[in-house]
Amino acid sequence: MTSEPPVFEDVEDAARRLEGHAVVTPLLRCDVLDEAGGGRVFVKAECLQRTGSFKFRGAWNRLSRLDAEQKKRGVVAFSSGNHAQGVAAAAKLLGMPAVIVMPADAPAVKAEGVRALGARIVPFDRETEDRNAIAARLAAETGAVVVPAFDDPFVIAGQGTTGLEIVAQAAGVSLDAVLCPAGGGGLVAGVGLAMKRLSPETRIWAVEPAGFDDHRRSLAAGRIVCNERLTGSICDALLAPAPGEITFALNRMQLSGAVTVSDDEALAAMAFAFRHLKIVLEPGGAVALAAVLNRRVETQGRAVCMVVSGGNVDPALFARALT
Amino acid sequence: MTSEPPVFEDVEDAARRLEGHAVVTPLLRCDVLDEAGGGRVFVKAECLQRTGSFKFRGAWNRLSRLDAEQKKRGVVAFSSGNHAQGVAAAAKLLGMPAVIVMPADAPAVKAEGVRALGARIVPFDRETEDRNAIAARLAAETGAVVVPAFDDPFVIAGQGTTGLEIVAQAAGVSLDAVLCPAGGGGLVAGVGLAMKRLSPETRIWAVEPAGFDDHRRSLAAGRIVCNERLTGSICDALLAPAPGEITFALNRMQLSGAVTVSDDEALAAMAFAFRHLKIVLEPGGAVALAAVLNRRVETQGRAVCMVVSGGNVDPALFARALT
Repeated sequence: MTSEPPVFEDVEDAARRLEGHAVVTPLLRCDVLDEAGGGRVFVKAECLQRTGSFKFRGAWNRLSRLDAEQKKRGVVAFSSGNHAQGVAAAAKLLGMPAVIVMPADAPAVKAEGVRALGARIVPFDRETEDRNAIAARLAAETGAVVVPAFDDPFVIAGQGTTGLEIVAQAAGVSLDAVLCPAGGGGLVAGVGLAMKRLSPETRIWAVEPAGFDDHRRSLAAGRIVCNERLTGSICDALLAPAPGEITFALNRMQLSGAVTVSDDEALAAMAFAFRHLKIVLEPGGAVALAAVLNRRVETQGRAVCMVVSGGNVDPALFARALT
Repeated sequence: MTSEPPVFEDVEDAARRLEGHAVVTPLLRCDVLDEAGGGRVFVKAECLQRTGSFKFRGAWNRLSRLDAEQKKRGVVAFSSGNHAQGVAAAAKLLGMPAVIVMPADAPAVKAEGVRALGARIVPFDRETEDRNAIAARLAAETGAVVVPAFDDPFVIAGQGTTGLEIVAQAAGVSLDAVLCPAGGGGLVAGVGLAMKRLSPETRIWAVEPAGFDDHRRSLAAGRIVCNERLTGSICDALLAPAPGEITFALNRMQLSGAVTVSDDEALAAMAFAFRHLKIVLEPGGAVALAAVLNRRVETQGRAVCMVVSGGNVDPALFARALT
């Protein structure tokens, strides 16, 4: 396993590996969204991916490469819930044990999803405990392989297959911009790899929750800058403490910038998706849609695509978004 | 315009006409659903169709055939809301006026959708007024063409394009059964036309709300039997008074039977779709999923496909389904 950033060919390799295992999620359109954006707006619906988020892609690409001995000892991952489900699903399909270190305040639907997939959950406190340390300790105890949520070349390459599909499904439309939610930055880094090769004119934007704009500030500083807080947004999927080293090495070259949306804007985007797209989004999965609806990037007269990255949301919070 | 039942070639013709206008909706899978059904279960997600239901298919196939003079006078349709939005969207795209006769108790989201598409709504009382008579009067007054919600060869052929896509997307999997919601029976008749030619071994089932099992009773009687009530189910999309003459002529030949689900089962299916498929379904759009989840047809060890036909549901009712 290398810690060199992945390259485009790694994304292509991941795509071959994912074939028949991951869903080729649809690229959706809707007239009302085109009107709202003032252009042609494409929605890459990764909420329809296996386990309800894009995270299965990177997890499968990483886990399917483990050898027989590693498979026996299994994997350990830390995650607020979507990476957890991706890893748990891949582990189940590959017949290996999985332990997930998960914040105690993660959405119930995510913890239930992980348990239903047969993985063991070790809860931790987001504010006071170091999830990396817990995962490392578990790995040392059991010999399990740690599967990072984003700062891993195979995980990034796996997420990047989303970008390959976007280009293929846009079917000749030249995209002016692609927007991706960013927590640790793995999705946007992988999608960036795909776009920069296949559609080099496309601008790549990260979208973050307001107050958790570590990518925006890191890009401005030219070095990795941490978030000041670890909790305090409903976008639980996007609260990684800081950009990863590998993801940031890619993102500082590939991104045109990062923009933010508020929790209320994320909720309104969830309601929009319910009403007009008929898909279920979680807050963190809706931020790129929120960025388009609130014109955080130029969409007028342009062709843009956003990734709606996950739909694992508790019913009560979803009901709140609708009212 | 003929009142002969359409044939398979009419469905193929409709598909050519719909290309580039209707969405090729995805065929979804999910592990939990496969486990629930005990087999391979495919979900044709027509809630992701333009206007949030399959109805755009038939509307476009009918309206796009009108001549210049007819287009000027426009169209009139009666509908509980999904056909209304399909007709309104097709009329808007084709630049013709549309008047929709719609029950006063239709979901607000459907009335708003119709208005947003620029059509005029004429409300009527489901219990005391005859929507056919109102539509006929409006047509006589304005010279507009009446676009039936189901009992029309072009409308049925348009809905049948759903079946062509199912066969193509199932990609070689031989389907044992296809289940479709049935109100007037246009969708299941059209899908049946496609399946009987392309996959003759596939059994076709209609799914109805309990208490509104006019297809089941009509099949048993060998002639069209009306529902005893016109209101009283949350499945507002499926409360047509009786099977159509053309649809029943097809369905009595093509259907293996009709099964029913309760309103509570439809609500539970909506919650399942929220949780596991990440799609938004209205009650009437969820009945075929409910039939699979409750094993109303044999699914153990089989490959089955159900059409989830619409997602136009008011937020309050959706929230109720989730709790």
